[in-house]
Amino acid sequence: MHNNTAISELIEAGKWISQRGWVPATGGNFSARTNSGFVVTASGFDKGQLGSHTFIELDHVGNRSASAAKPSAETELHLCMYKLIPAANYVLHTHSVAATVLSRVIKGHSLDLDGYEMQKSLTGITSHLDTLSIPIFDNDQDIDRLSLLVSDHHLHMPIEHGVLIRGHGLYVVGRTISEVRRQLEGLEFLFACEIERLKLVGLES
Amino acid sequence: MHNNTAISELIEAGKWISQRGWVPATGGNFSARTNSGFVVTASGFDKGQLGSHTFIELDHVGNRSASAAKPSAETELHLCMYKLIPAANYVLHTHSVAATVLSRVIKGHSLDLDGYEMQKSLTGITSHLDTLSIPIFDNDQDIDRLSLLVSDHHLHMPIEHGVLIRGHGLYVVGRTISEVRRQLEGLEFLFACEIERLKLVGLES
Amino acid sequence: MHNNTAISELIEAGKWISQRGWVPATGGNFSARTNSGFVVTASGFDKGQLGSHTFIELDHVGNRSASAAKPSAETELHLCMYKLIPAANYVLHTHSVAATVLSRVIKGHSLDLDGYEMQKSLTGITSHLDTLSIPIFDNDQDIDRLSLLVSDHHLHMPIEHGVLIRGHGLYVVGRTISEVRRQLEGLEFLFACEIERLKLVGLES
Amino acid sequence: MHNNTAISELIEAGKWISQRGWVPATGGNFSARTNSGFVVTASGFDKGQLGSHTFIELDHVGNRSASAAKPSAETELHLCMYKLIPAANYVLHTHSVAATVLSRVIKGHSLDLDGYEMQKSLTGITSHLDTLSIPIFDNDQDIDRLSLLVSDHHLHMPIEHGVLIRGHGLYVVGRTISEVRRQLEGLEFLFACEIERLKLVGLES
Repeated sequence: MHNNTAISELIEAGKWISQRGWVPATGGNFSARTNSGFVVTASGFDKGQLGSHTFIELDHVGNRSASAAKPSAETELHLCMYKLIPAANYVLHTHSVAATVLSRVIKGHSLDLDGYEMQKSLTGITSHLDTLSIPIFDNDQDIDRLSLLVSDHHLHMPIEHGVLIRGHGLYVVGRTISEVRRQLEGLEFLFACEIERLKLVGLES
Repeated sequence: MHNNTAISELIEAGKWISQRGWVPATGGNFSARTNSGFVVTASGFDKGQLGSHTFIELDHVGNRSASAAKPSAETELHLCMYKLIPAANYVLHTHSVAATVLSRVIKGHSLDLDGYEMQKSLTGITSHLDTLSIPIFDNDQDIDRLSLLVSDHHLHMPIEHGVLIRGHGLYVVGRTISEVRRQLEGLEFLFACEIERLKLVGLES
Repeated sequence: MHNNTAISELIEAGKWISQRGWVPATGGNFSARTNSGFVVTASGFDKGQLGSHTFIELDHVGNRSASAAKPSAETELHLCMYKLIPAANYVLHTHSVAATVLSRVIKGHSLDLDGYEMQKSLTGITSHLDTLSIPIFDNDQDIDRLSLLVSDHHLHMPIEHGVLIRGHGLYVVGRTISEVRRQLEGLEFLFACEIERLKLVGLES
Repeated sequence: MHNNTAISELIEAGKWISQRGWVPATGGNFSARTNSGFVVTASGFDKGQLGSHTFIELDHVGNRSASAAKPSAETELHLCMYKLIPAANYVLHTHSVAATVLSRVIKGHSLDLDGYEMQKSLTGITSHLDTLSIPIFDNDQDIDRLSLLVSDHHLHMPIEHGVLIRGHGLYVVGRTISEVRRQLEGLEFLFACEIERLKLVGLES
């Protein structure tokens, strides 16, 4: 995929994600793996109004190949996800209320969901009886250290769809733009359901 | 009704339903009974952006008469609803947060609502003092087995407006497109109210 | 005010109200007092897509003067409000989740609010220290009987801004279209706040 | 900055804020510091449909220099914020459900947030481990008295991003229009998260 194609897809995805309220206050960042390396959103822009000047182009090892804009601080974690999951061509990092709150009130190291038909919107899940497990990592301003933690975890428990960062948000991956958007939408639906369910049955249930 | 008329109505309904967030992540499916059999949405499309190519045409016994697209896995349950309820000409299957969560936290075999004026948006209900009862079936990836369960239930307790599948969503029927849309909107309003009411008074109330 | 002016204002208000989700499933009805009597929405139409054919014209005593459409079942309660409150030129009847649920979980005969700055959006309220009291009447399918109850109540406790019908919705009045819309918006904001507050502090607080 | 530039920016901000539901029922008011003094919204207008005629121009000491419209009752508090915080060029005062409810259920004199990545959308906050503290003042219809209280507080505990008025809403400041909008959006996101978190863990946690 050419950089320009990826950038167009991410601009479109950004509008859609912003309308849902998942990238408030210039938060979030998006990236894609391309022929020449990667494209990733620059820091500090409204993700609902991206343009081609709001992207950074990186080469295959993640060095900036053109443009003087400041790459997002979390670029390192995007590159980490691409390294760990060879099939991933897109990474979307979003900040929804549901992802932020769920990842705080769930005290363990993963959000484990079952009993929801919508789990099947995640590639590889074929039944509501399966458990969908999304790892939760404690937030860390040191992105290198956080990336190392994610990599270590992946060695004995492969990450499939994405990860939650506690009190921070979601990183979700996909092979195609439609897969990554579907997985984001499916996960956000499940987070919204789980928050509502926990309000009714209590955190201890 | 001709297939094309039904398809136009379902495309329009899909936009409206998608805007309300009730068919996330390519979930949900819609169908209509027509002169030549049935039309039903194909699997895997965004239900807010349907086109004529995203529908499957079936004959009177439910066999595919044209088009090579994959019918939705839940087509069988649509056909089951048409068989059980001769007056039904439309079936909308949706996935809202409220329907998903209510059908999980209510442990019994039906959601029973009373005291709401909006119950009267359901055909045949004339007072808030009536009880509106929507059967809840446990989710099952085996749609034939699930359809059989729904049929058995209908024998001794006729289904009038629709059914809930636990942790999955709603199937709602109607004679006309406006009736099925009104019943969907009325039920979703009632689900939203009941969730909020239960948060305040507790699940045991 | 001419009927046509009132109808235009109510069509516009209907779009705005529908977008906020306060008249789902063809619910709700709107009216205005005019030179020649009253105009009121006909039954069974989507209140977000009103046209001049969806209104009934009534004379000064409330008899239908033209048009064969069925008046809304709740027209009687609109006429009752105009009789009780001579300054009222508009009545909007809406069905929001918050009004429906609050009027059920509050067991007494009024919703009493204080401590909210937004109370001042209601005409005559000048401080958050005032108590804003909205009477709650039990729902009744017999609108004549319900109207009588509202009239009786008004004799010893004058209704100022509107009334809640339990499990049903809100009737709000205003002298001008902008006043009635502002009062509707202010009350719905307060209902939304109060529902959230009660979730946090509990119903007994 | 010229008055006209500031007015254009605030008209645009008003549309955006109104769409999010943070200035219902003509509530809220906005202002900017300009070359010739200040511009501030006039009272009683829908903040989502502002025009140049809905602004009051004030000179450097806050006296009305032109226009006969009634300044917002809360203009005094805007001027107070500009006096206390020399770097502030914009003040947005909004009424969201979350700000209104949180400021009531939190009984102390500040809302203290930590553990949220989104705290970093507030200028000067660089880590989720920092505590973001927004002072809460009891509401008072006497704006001069309220302004005095805010000024006193500022002397021993400088206000950085804004203040909450209990049961009333938020005042947020910024050096540029994009900073004040980002800080508003970030704070509202945090308020929404904190309300949801408290519903799950309880007010005492």
